[in-house]
Amino acid sequence: MSAASQPVEFGFQLLGTDGAARRGRVTTAHGTIETPAFMPVGTAATVKAMRPESVAETGAEILLGNTYHLMLRPGAERVAALGGLHKFMNWPKPILTDSGGFQVMSLAGLRKIEEKGVTFRSHIDGSVHFLSPERSVEIQHLLDSNITMVLDECTPHPATHEQALSSMELSMRWAQRSKDGFKKRPGYGLFGIVQGSVYPDLRKRSAEALASIGFDGYAVGGLAVGEGQEIMFRVLEETVPHLPADRPHYLMGVGKPADIVGAVQRGIDMFDCVLPTRSGRTAQAFTARGTVNLRNARHQDDPRPLEEGCPCPACTSCSRAYLHHLVRSEEILGLMLLTWHNLAYYQRLMAGLRAAIEAGSLEDFVAGFHETQAGGDIPALG
Amino acid sequence: MSAASQPVEFGFQLLGTDGAARRGRVTTAHGTIETPAFMPVGTAATVKAMRPESVAETGAEILLGNTYHLMLRPGAERVAALGGLHKFMNWPKPILTDSGGFQVMSLAGLRKIEEKGVTFRSHIDGSVHFLSPERSVEIQHLLDSNITMVLDECTPHPATHEQALSSMELSMRWAQRSKDGFKKRPGYGLFGIVQGSVYPDLRKRSAEALASIGFDGYAVGGLAVGEGQEIMFRVLEETVPHLPADRPHYLMGVGKPADIVGAVQRGIDMFDCVLPTRSGRTAQAFTARGTVNLRNARHQDDPRPLEEGCPCPACTSCSRAYLHHLVRSEEILGLMLLTWHNLAYYQRLMAGLRAAIEAGSLEDFVAGFHETQAGGDIPALG
Ligand SMILES: [Zn+2]
Ligand SMILES: [Zn+2]
Repeated sequence: MSAASQPVEFGFQLLGTDGAARRGRVTTAHGTIETPAFMPVGTAATVKAMRPESVAETGAEILLGNTYHLMLRPGAERVAALGGLHKFMNWPKPILTDSGGFQVMSLAGLRKIEEKGVTFRSHIDGSVHFLSPERSVEIQHLLDSNITMVLDECTPHPATHEQALSSMELSMRWAQRSKDGFKKRPGYGLFGIVQGSVYPDLRKRSAEALASIGFDGYAVGGLAVGEGQEIMFRVLEETVPHLPADRPHYLMGVGKPADIVGAVQRGIDMFDCVLPTRSGRTAQAFTARGTVNLRNARHQDDPRPLEEGCPCPACTSCSRAYLHHLVRSEEILGLMLLTWHNLAYYQRLMAGLRAAIEAGSLEDFVAGFHETQAGGDIPALG
Repeated sequence: MSAASQPVEFGFQLLGTDGAARRGRVTTAHGTIETPAFMPVGTAATVKAMRPESVAETGAEILLGNTYHLMLRPGAERVAALGGLHKFMNWPKPILTDSGGFQVMSLAGLRKIEEKGVTFRSHIDGSVHFLSPERSVEIQHLLDSNITMVLDECTPHPATHEQALSSMELSMRWAQRSKDGFKKRPGYGLFGIVQGSVYPDLRKRSAEALASIGFDGYAVGGLAVGEGQEIMFRVLEETVPHLPADRPHYLMGVGKPADIVGAVQRGIDMFDCVLPTRSGRTAQAFTARGTVNLRNARHQDDPRPLEEGCPCPACTSCSRAYLHHLVRSEEILGLMLLTWHNLAYYQRLMAGLRAAIEAGSLEDFVAGFHETQAGGDIPALG
């Protein structure tokens, strides 16, 4: 076997730190991911309204795919027969898939959770499906996901200590079964998920339980479910120190730019969120100067770009007046361009965080971030 | 003034013929157009679901913009203040605008046609507007359209000889007023529109009336309004010989690939139609082997491209199975890709027609076109 065809081991390299923040690199069979990293969400084998080439152009190095959606349509066995998810959706770079558990809870009908797994009805056609830790890992294997997530129960918020304990313990048993079912291959990894709601003792127990099973990465789940930023940051401060430092730390489903910045300061390496893509479809743009609503009539005669210096096509080739016109006319190009811009903004933010950690200037970077955000959008013309 | 900054005159060069078919070149201030040419429709300052760069990548050299839509939203004066339509929508190549008359008849409410012009209610907000030949030409000037169309009355089908005569004569008086109102500038042209319904004597009278006024190009209007291909071709045969041969001939609102092929054989140089873009949004793909409905379950496991040899991203980077999945999941990327494919197919068809005319082999090309279309889609797998 030649050097070029040596299989790549899945791994994480810690390149540097600044306080609790980490600069790292995840290695997979489909390429590397510089961290802190933001993963755009490609729910149904597409990042909505974006060609995969365009997603890559924003700087994204890894996508998230949804096991729940893909198992229902087009089906994991079908994707496997067609060569896996990378080939199916024309995304040759790394892919992480969630376990399907979160969507079963939030989208499916008639859920029944038992020790063996969860039975649910498809939100598409009402058909009945069963998802166990073993089946979730198998589906993610069929999809050819580089990072498989264990099936867990995302503990609802709020939960009593007793509820959170019982739910967390179920998730830990499922984590062991996920690990047992996972087929190790070079360049592919399995991540565990810490639960425990807002309770420090449970978060610590969960982190330690996962570490003793042993995973390629550790996610913090059960946050961004309505608890608010303050509690989320507190839980991170109480949880991340208990995660193995030599593995990537992933905060699931987060978040707004300020959430991400704060979580990076608390030792998180990876993020995913529908916010930049979903907001792009509702005329909300993220910028260094806060969010901009392109539907607002203040933009209708404004020849200036949405965000000066942004390299995305919405900013380099369109005026605010044109973007406003597209939004008001409900033109598809409007949401294509705003989705692109939002993904580009998120990637620029991550690049800025990485550079700041490398330079040891994260504190200054964060202060500048908050100051510019608070300053708000450029004043209207005239 | 240096040679590079010499203003370009609007013009038409006849490069060759094959039977009645013509190979030509239109010159404008924003670039040249090789004919026969197909113009994608950019109704509201966007070709739906396409970035302008992507439209250009398909081979399109000119777009059609809709005066009716643009006068209502964002407004012609606003577009002018923002630097004209090319800049507004980031399309630096030539633009042709229709006069607004057709959409007033098909979309607006409460129309009142008088000698001076037409009063109508906006389909967007019910506001009352007035469009005269002079105002239509002025709007198209404000948009900075390279090819302005005269305001005409698109005679409904069917019409009696008397109705068609009266309507055509109104259009000819409006054509003169449009000519009088048009501000000549280097690289910008004004096209007249032949009316006369299905009546050869009226078509001839209309063509001669326009020729005596004198235009930079001549369109055939009032076709593709439900009369069917046979009658359309007959009217073209009775009309095109009366159009000045040294000016481009434009068949408005046409059509299916076979309509375009037949019209090119009858001396038409320019086309526009919503069919490739609209069909792209309803899962219908145009190919050399006829139309393909990607919603059909026969594609769900098919790893083959939509159309072998097509250079568009739908064909080079996606399987039929993936396109089918996107369509069934109602994903925006599906209509983005199918619109792109359809526009690429239309441009490939036009390039084939141009090459065949140059080679003097149009008859063979057309025979091959019909044979392949009749052969139908590739057989389903398995
Ligand atoms: Zn941008
Ligand atoms: Zn294609």
